[in-house]
Amino acid sequence: MNDLTQQDATQNNSLDTLSQLHELLVSKSLDRVSDLLTEMHPAEIADFLECLPGKSRKKIWGLISVDREGDVLAHLQDAVRSELLEHMQPQEVAEATKDLETDDVADIIQDLPEGVQDTVLLSMGEQNRLRLASVLSYPEDTAGGLMNTDVISIRADVTLDVVTRYLRRVENIPEKTDNLMVVDRENQYLGALSVIDILIGDPEASVGELMKEESGISADLSASEVAKVFEQRDLVSAAVVNGNGILLGRITVDDVVDVIQEEAEHAVRSMAGLGDDDMFAPIFTSTKRRAVWLGINLATAFLGAAVIGRFEDTIQQLVALAVLMPIVAGMGGVAGSQTLTIAIRGIALGHLNKSNAMALMLKESAVGLLNGLMWACVVSVIVVFWFDDTSLGFIIGLAMMINLIVAAFAGAVIPMGLNRYGIDPAIAGGVLLTTVTDVVGFMTFLGLASLFLVS
Amino acid sequence: MNDLTQQDATQNNSLDTLSQLHELLVSKSLDRVSDLLTEMHPAEIADFLECLPGKSRKKIWGLISVDREGDVLAHLQDAVRSELLEHMQPQEVAEATKDLETDDVADIIQDLPEGVQDTVLLSMGEQNRLRLASVLSYPEDTAGGLMNTDVISIRADVTLDVVTRYLRRVENIPEKTDNLMVVDRENQYLGALSVIDILIGDPEASVGELMKEESGISADLSASEVAKVFEQRDLVSAAVVNGNGILLGRITVDDVVDVIQEEAEHAVRSMAGLGDDDMFAPIFTSTKRRAVWLGINLATAFLGAAVIGRFEDTIQQLVALAVLMPIVAGMGGVAGSQTLTIAIRGIALGHLNKSNAMALMLKESAVGLLNGLMWACVVSVIVVFWFDDTSLGFIIGLAMMINLIVAAFAGAVIPMGLNRYGIDPAIAGGVLLTTVTDVVGFMTFLGLASLFLVS
Repeated sequence: MNDLTQQDATQNNSLDTLSQLHELLVSKSLDRVSDLLTEMHPAEIADFLECLPGKSRKKIWGLISVDREGDVLAHLQDAVRSELLEHMQPQEVAEATKDLETDDVADIIQDLPEGVQDTVLLSMGEQNRLRLASVLSYPEDTAGGLMNTDVISIRADVTLDVVTRYLRRVENIPEKTDNLMVVDRENQYLGALSVIDILIGDPEASVGELMKEESGISADLSASEVAKVFEQRDLVSAAVVNGNGILLGRITVDDVVDVIQEEAEHAVRSMAGLGDDDMFAPIFTSTKRRAVWLGINLATAFLGAAVIGRFEDTIQQLVALAVLMPIVAGMGGVAGSQTLTIAIRGIALGHLNKSNAMALMLKESAVGLLNGLMWACVVSVIVVFWFDDTSLGFIIGLAMMINLIVAAFAGAVIPMGLNRYGIDPAIAGGVLLTTVTDVVGFMTFLGLASLFLVS
Repeated sequence: MNDLTQQDATQNNSLDTLSQLHELLVSKSLDRVSDLLTEMHPAEIADFLECLPGKSRKKIWGLISVDREGDVLAHLQDAVRSELLEHMQPQEVAEATKDLETDDVADIIQDLPEGVQDTVLLSMGEQNRLRLASVLSYPEDTAGGLMNTDVISIRADVTLDVVTRYLRRVENIPEKTDNLMVVDRENQYLGALSVIDILIGDPEASVGELMKEESGISADLSASEVAKVFEQRDLVSAAVVNGNGILLGRITVDDVVDVIQEEAEHAVRSMAGLGDDDMFAPIFTSTKRRAVWLGINLATAFLGAAVIGRFEDTIQQLVALAVLMPIVAGMGGVAGSQTLTIAIRGIALGHLNKSNAMALMLKESAVGLLNGLMWACVVSVIVVFWFDDTSLGFIIGLAMMINLIVAAFAGAVIPMGLNRYGIDPAIAGGVLLTTVTDVVGFMTFLGLASLFLVS
């Protein structure tokens, strides 16, 4: 029996299994860990491996039987998979992947060092190698890279009865076969015939009469466009064709779900400058990846410092400015990042384009102005009471309002500009934005103060 | 013919359609807009509406025929949908939703004001109302709220031949029917029988012989747990049962894809304090939503200012401190947010728990220490050259190292602590973290300076 029944049961089960596994690991009862692992679904094992620090990961990996290694690898996230693959022999990789679907094998092969790739390919059967070659000839993030090549195709002129008898002879009907692909003599894709229609249709009717004509997804289409098509049309599977309309393979919805997950995570990680970092990546790998981001931020921080440096005399005369200036810069950063997030998302979804860019900028600037007005008043009042200085209160309010409007404007313009030059706004947008809000925040506040407050 | 064929073709098509629509809107040729809309897929219209500022949105919405309104509503994101529903008559809502699947109707109904909900429910047919009531009795974000009630169920003791004949008489076979649900006399769920197996199996075989026994998803299971089950097991559809194992309905993978999308977006928006903001929400709505976040950040910014305020004398004596202090605080914020992102993601995926929390804290602190050492050296050297002051260089390096280690530690501890108290770390984590890194950054840098640099 499958154990999907009760929430508490499932959650407790998996929690129990996890803490049990952990205790067994600590007490070094590897035999019992091994027993538990054989009862787990490959996806659960993959999940478990992702939770483990590097050392334990390798220990557990050693306990998984070779015939399940492939399934587990297919469910692992890229970073963890590469780490484990580094320590596997080509022969072992070939053995582990031999029963997987072509797209999963392709994913794994692409994570291998080049020399090892060839060895693995050579140790495969002829048919599998040819299939794999067709998937590998397309980049990983295109329809061609996502597709499976094990497709059942039929001709338009046969009857449903013939199709049914043919299906009974097919040894392994691919998973999630909701449609059969209809092709002509040249393997040109014509359309799909649903399994349900074969079942309930007149056995003497021809495939051509019942099939739904359509033209398939181009193998060059990017993975995110494929995801969009699946989402908009609620598809379970779709045919993949080359430029001449020849049927190459089939994409199923489970691969699309992975694409959606990965894109979402990519966006979150990119904004934090994390790259493909996993929770228990080796310390030096993590340090190196994050150092780049810290370095870039340090450079921009010095830019802000240089602006402050120009007002050293002003600060000397009125130290309250040093106390308050981070507030002006910080509020700009927060307001700007809200607009930035909206704009980045709009770009990712294809919702933001030339036709509505101006409308977004106007709207965001208006929001910036309103929030600027409101919080400027609040800050002014607080500062007047704190420092007993009306002019200082007025000036911080004015500076904050200016910075919030600039922030909203920059939060909309920066990602659109980056996107036009082919730079991922999720990666570079945040740094650029805080540079702007810091510089403008310090400059307006200290500048206004030097003009009106000190002599 | 479906138009999925070529990437360029598809992209250009949709871009062309969009800019064409935009131009027509500007030139007020509403008749031609209306023509274009009838050719578009409801999902594309929904997409288009999401790109439009509020006013144009209402104008376009008025051009969509009532029989397509339901499909478009089903594809819209919540915020935009609620906005449009506000201006619809209950009768119109009832009419628009009458051909939708139960789960889509339930989603829409839940967005209506309470009084209107009842009117819509009353204007429905008896059967639809009962079905809907069963979905509405579960929260939106559970298996029960996601399910459809139009399920084909069969008994275990009939033959495949009987099933096939029965299916031929069913008027509307629900979309994405890959399995039929097998139940007993009391409607207790027993397992699933795939359509393929009915097609290729011996017509005289019984359903019970060929079905796959399983126990279905509990209606109480949270939507994110449902998504996990679908992802791990690569499901297309799954049965939903109540606490007694009685079959209630069916969840299909397209609903799960929506859940995954929404969760991913929720995470990104929460971190920016955006709530359910859409790109063209009315200006006042956006201002109000974001104001809350700005207010919270202002309060924490004043906390940082208060810390600086305690060192006014020190700054007066050495203004370079004011110039450099934002660098120390800022670098801590960046390093901390990297750890925070990793930890929040680990918690969301259920990867981070008691058994590996300590390991993560140690790893992150080590990364913080290494990056702290490295960047402390860089900063020290730059500062020594800039201000010609060795002690100042030493002190900023030391302060930065301390702040980066604290940041890494706080980035791991804060989300775990918030999660324990049931607070979403994606919402509150960022503010808390920057408060810590600001306060610690200012305190160590200015504190060390007041001890060792000034008299």
